[in-house]
Amino acid sequence: MDKTFKIIIEYDGTNFHGWQRQKNERSVQEEIEKVLKTITTEKITLTGSGRTDAGVHAMGQVAHFKCNTKLSTEKLMKGLNSLLPKDIVILSCAEADQDFHARFNVKSKVYNYQILNQPIPSAIHRQYVWHIAKKLDVSVMRDAIPHIQGKHDFSAFEGSGSPRSHSTRNIIRAEITNCKESLLVIELEADGFLKFMVRNIVGTLVDVGLGKLSPEGFKEILLSKDRNLASPTAPPQGLFLVQVKYE
Amino acid sequence: MDKTFKIIIEYDGTNFHGWQRQKNERSVQEEIEKVLKTITTEKITLTGSGRTDAGVHAMGQVAHFKCNTKLSTEKLMKGLNSLLPKDIVILSCAEADQDFHARFNVKSKVYNYQILNQPIPSAIHRQYVWHIAKKLDVSVMRDAIPHIQGKHDFSAFEGSGSPRSHSTRNIIRAEITNCKESLLVIELEADGFLKFMVRNIVGTLVDVGLGKLSPEGFKEILLSKDRNLASPTAPPQGLFLVQVKYE
Repeated sequence: MDKTFKIIIEYDGTNFHGWQRQKNERSVQEEIEKVLKTITTEKITLTGSGRTDAGVHAMGQVAHFKCNTKLSTEKLMKGLNSLLPKDIVILSCAEADQDFHARFNVKSKVYNYQILNQPIPSAIHRQYVWHIAKKLDVSVMRDAIPHIQGKHDFSAFEGSGSPRSHSTRNIIRAEITNCKESLLVIELEADGFLKFMVRNIVGTLVDVGLGKLSPEGFKEILLSKDRNLASPTAPPQGLFLVQVKYE
Repeated sequence: MDKTFKIIIEYDGTNFHGWQRQKNERSVQEEIEKVLKTITTEKITLTGSGRTDAGVHAMGQVAHFKCNTKLSTEKLMKGLNSLLPKDIVILSCAEADQDFHARFNVKSKVYNYQILNQPIPSAIHRQYVWHIAKKLDVSVMRDAIPHIQGKHDFSAFEGSGSPRSHSTRNIIRAEITNCKESLLVIELEADGFLKFMVRNIVGTLVDVGLGKLSPEGFKEILLSKDRNLASPTAPPQGLFLVQVKYE
């Protein structure tokens, strides 16, 4: 009988058209599936915890696959890392319960969004931050962020064209930290995220930090459920899927 | 009369064949010279504090150029940053003394070398660290490093084919810091560096950390002045030119 394997994956999203396999575009899923086929000689389908968009990075994406291999998990992982392109790294590979499902069993996901807030952009960090030249008022952003905590209908922050049964999600944790004076990290943990939800929340929070919107205005946008009221979507390169938690 | 301008430059060396202009290769110097020509309509030669090799990064490279422009330094800098490719950023632009020379007036330079010391490589940081899977003994590396401090003939750590009048350099500061458990930063400040000197010192220090060489062996290599005794050159992507200091 096929075994079920769970892998944890880091990737640099810069040169990928996102997680999901697509015709004529480089995807993380397809790169890993190709190498799994080489190693196991089986045609394997990888199921991720969810998609990430083009340009978005992951430090802890999770996926599962079923396979009849006799290889140990150590050998599988070693083989994967030696054959995968350098912008994908398998951080762990373990056998899971037969019925483990990387998407259906998700308890919560943690995303980080990095903002470089200084007058001049960075050449070295450009692919991993959103550069904002104007000074952000972080304390007023911190006033806004509790409004999205808890269970809400996040339609106002949802990208169009995403398949889902409803738009209610539960944000368990929402924090803004300043690692350095100029580096802002917005961390969100929720039971699930709608399409573009983190990037739309971040885009709108930044307008709060720029004084274009008050914390109350931010709350009203959430309650309106109207995507047209929220600010433009933040660019992908600041976003990192940090962790996927399971029951 | 031409004015002399001093610029401080950050660049991501990943996609450059180094600082210096070369036929058919992308260089930082040439990219900036091209944009300076567009902005000022003058053919301008940029003089850097020194070369950096292909793949090496800079957070504080310094260069000067002479030019007859009436543009303010603010406008020059804005124009440069809007026209330059995103992997080069001008951090500052100022008028300097008429006889300021970015190479001849150097008092000292600071280089950092980043090592990621953990079993698994990093997809996200791969272009900015040297990944070493085996655990390094940092304390024994710290025992070795004082041997290179001060004035020495660094022939043993010199790459071949570098034009210089002699191989004596003065290392003012040599430190190893652990920002995180797995991230090691070797910082060297000297009045000047020979070709590949930092990378050859780092390569040899790593052999000390791996137990292949004792701190005394490290010292003997320095005293031997024999490049054949030192370890292989560390790869370029871990190296950053952090600062150039002037009198």
